[in-house]
Amino acid sequence: MSAILQNVSTSLSASTSTFLGHNNLKAIKPSHVSMAGRMSAVVKCVASPSAEKTAYKTNVARNENLAKLQAGYLFPEIARRRNAHIAKNPDAKVISLGIGDTTEPIPEVITSAMSKRSEVLSTVAGYSGYGAEQGEQKLRAAIASTYYEGLGIEEHDIFVSDGAKSDISRLQVLFGSNVTMAVQDPSYPAYVDSSVILGQTGLFQKDVEKYANIEYMKCTTENGFFPDLSTVRRTDIIFFCSPNNPTGSAASREQLTKLVQFAKENGSIIVYDSAYAMYVSDDSPRSIFEIPGAKEVALEVSSFSKYAGFTGVRLGWTAIPKELHYSDGFPVAKDFNRIVCTCFNGASNIAQAGGLACVSPEGITAMHEVVGFYKENTAIIVDTFNSLGFKVYGGKNAPYVWVHFPGRSSWDVFSEILEKTHVVTTPGSGFGPGGEGFVRVSAFGHRENVIEACRRFKELYK
Amino acid sequence: MSAILQNVSTSLSASTSTFLGHNNLKAIKPSHVSMAGRMSAVVKCVASPSAEKTAYKTNVARNENLAKLQAGYLFPEIARRRNAHIAKNPDAKVISLGIGDTTEPIPEVITSAMSKRSEVLSTVAGYSGYGAEQGEQKLRAAIASTYYEGLGIEEHDIFVSDGAKSDISRLQVLFGSNVTMAVQDPSYPAYVDSSVILGQTGLFQKDVEKYANIEYMKCTTENGFFPDLSTVRRTDIIFFCSPNNPTGSAASREQLTKLVQFAKENGSIIVYDSAYAMYVSDDSPRSIFEIPGAKEVALEVSSFSKYAGFTGVRLGWTAIPKELHYSDGFPVAKDFNRIVCTCFNGASNIAQAGGLACVSPEGITAMHEVVGFYKENTAIIVDTFNSLGFKVYGGKNAPYVWVHFPGRSSWDVFSEILEKTHVVTTPGSGFGPGGEGFVRVSAFGHRENVIEACRRFKELYK
Repeated sequence: MSAILQNVSTSLSASTSTFLGHNNLKAIKPSHVSMAGRMSAVVKCVASPSAEKTAYKTNVARNENLAKLQAGYLFPEIARRRNAHIAKNPDAKVISLGIGDTTEPIPEVITSAMSKRSEVLSTVAGYSGYGAEQGEQKLRAAIASTYYEGLGIEEHDIFVSDGAKSDISRLQVLFGSNVTMAVQDPSYPAYVDSSVILGQTGLFQKDVEKYANIEYMKCTTENGFFPDLSTVRRTDIIFFCSPNNPTGSAASREQLTKLVQFAKENGSIIVYDSAYAMYVSDDSPRSIFEIPGAKEVALEVSSFSKYAGFTGVRLGWTAIPKELHYSDGFPVAKDFNRIVCTCFNGASNIAQAGGLACVSPEGITAMHEVVGFYKENTAIIVDTFNSLGFKVYGGKNAPYVWVHFPGRSSWDVFSEILEKTHVVTTPGSGFGPGGEGFVRVSAFGHRENVIEACRRFKELYK
Repeated sequence: MSAILQNVSTSLSASTSTFLGHNNLKAIKPSHVSMAGRMSAVVKCVASPSAEKTAYKTNVARNENLAKLQAGYLFPEIARRRNAHIAKNPDAKVISLGIGDTTEPIPEVITSAMSKRSEVLSTVAGYSGYGAEQGEQKLRAAIASTYYEGLGIEEHDIFVSDGAKSDISRLQVLFGSNVTMAVQDPSYPAYVDSSVILGQTGLFQKDVEKYANIEYMKCTTENGFFPDLSTVRRTDIIFFCSPNNPTGSAASREQLTKLVQFAKENGSIIVYDSAYAMYVSDDSPRSIFEIPGAKEVALEVSSFSKYAGFTGVRLGWTAIPKELHYSDGFPVAKDFNRIVCTCFNGASNIAQAGGLACVSPEGITAMHEVVGFYKENTAIIVDTFNSLGFKVYGGKNAPYVWVHFPGRSSWDVFSEILEKTHVVTTPGSGFGPGGEGFVRVSAFGHRENVIEACRRFKELYK
């Protein structure tokens, strides 16, 4: 993002001269002078230290919710710092265990399906245009049977998307600005940021590092990263990610049963993010719908990104049970369908062909291999920090290792690690105030890079 | 969409029995009984004529903006009626000139680029994960130089998207719920519907068939489908599509100069939809940025859908000039960048490889061939209705023919054509009250189908 920001901010003088060059205001007829109150103004602003310039401004007020956002979105900010580090240290071999980007090739059984689908699009018989906004029927059915067999989630409950992040925003548009939100603290920043953008929150409160009107459900070492629900205020929506990004911990069946009960008691809707479900090693639920009664209080967002290396291909889904209703009895799925039809036109048909290959028997095996590889990375990272005497969390059921640096600023630790080892991590406080004192180390990396990063960690913290 | 709606509405009894089967309310502890006011209720609703059933409801209020929407999104509704017609007439050879879906294969130079990109994703060297949210640098640069050369729109002003429809909604999220909107009447329904969903409008007013607080700029045969701006109320945002969907008319340079002046006088922002620009045959502008001063009052949304047959592949872009500022001087592009980073994760890398091939010299030639083919279809349709004595508009600069049926209901004409010729069109009133009395005939179709449809039109209206 930084390139854009820089570009925008340095472009004022260029825009100004263009405007003055055209001098279009002369074309305005005298009869419009009486509209002066509404006319756009030419205002002064300092574009360079040496000269004052003018820039045209429309009379459209900036969306005040965007003004509430405190900084750029976390991951572009991490990328910006990485790039700045590379610029400062051009010879350093920088290793990124930061933004959680997959690194291993997509299994050939999946890419060949996408390649074939691409090719047939150039034939009369194989060409297809607009698909169903909700996704191709075969893929919806295959996702339902692969991930929700026996759980009462069926083909028509699945909405195929271009990824979980896009669907989270579409869900926010679905709920609108008058709902209240709860998030795990720490949590994936898209929940909070999209909530701010939709106007569900108050201003950012600097003293507590939280937005007003969001319920931050503290997930700490003390509570095993599952919130103490007896202290949680009722909200309309509860975002809940398990296995969790960033803490790496997966909620147990007993904990999720409590969560579902809590939602039922309060009449809340759980937006359950299961994007890491295939990383579960123990008997923690892979889906919220494994919990009896969840279909009446929860929907689930998921993605092929971390299973098949689809971070760039873009494919995910949202499952909305027929049983989920608003307070007036209207089905949530029916309104989400309207959102998908109006604000989206379906995921790329080529990506959907890849998705169908993902959930074929060979594809499932291949995805388990990809997941298995990253989990071996996780074990290497966990062992490294354990051997250095750190308290380490997560890892077992997730591709993220959550390393405790008690009493230290996580941005400081992030910088220390970057400067001294040239390894990019993610500072815990980027995920909310509850992440302070932690650093998230992602297991997405080539094996040799993970081993080398761990060697450098050992050198730094020996 | 209809399948979903049907599924949702017929599922109440199933959901009810699931709920009763689990009987989860028993798990709620007595201590929570005092929260009865907040507890979700079990309510009665009639699921079948013979028995009363109960369904669980959350306490989350339905988004009132979604409740304002009058019907399903237009094109799924057209698809529903087409499918109903097919069910009723299983032997009829139905021809769709309705939803504007492309039918011709994607040029091989483009599909082979996508096929190759798919294949290399299975290699260590060729794999890539998350791309820049704004799109790949090469593609942004190529779009800027292909479509905006000499117009002052550069690489960093281009945001690559998964299509114009998605970007229109992201732009609505950008502007928020406190802005006012103007649309051409008739216009592409996504503008109005997304405005309603974001809460920018009042209720639908049945007497005039308009939503309160939207300015409908009437585009009629009398004004040559360009609104009389002296009668148009000031709004923050002006959606303007040229060449226009559905009327098929392209605004002239003089008209667009007036539009830009009007926006300047009012301090409005024009959201210019140029998705059909490559269909322009005369010297009408292909981009709003051809108009001097437009960069200070306009942004432009566009798409490869109708140039390269990418309706299913999903790829488009939005160009936001550095010169476009809110009333407080904040650059619009900077906030849109934040939206793109938070609510989107970039278009599919495979689709982007296709986009890059589209704007290669061979790709541009191939796209012109595709566009040329559909324009031949347009000429056939125009000639047919002309020969039958109809007043016909559009066609010259667009793939849509706008046929006048004065004094008749356009839904009636739609039904008449469907029932008697098995040809799907789109009723003009689906695009707004200004479309009443018209039917849109799309030129997207195989040649033999267009010829056959025209033969049937001649039989019906001879």
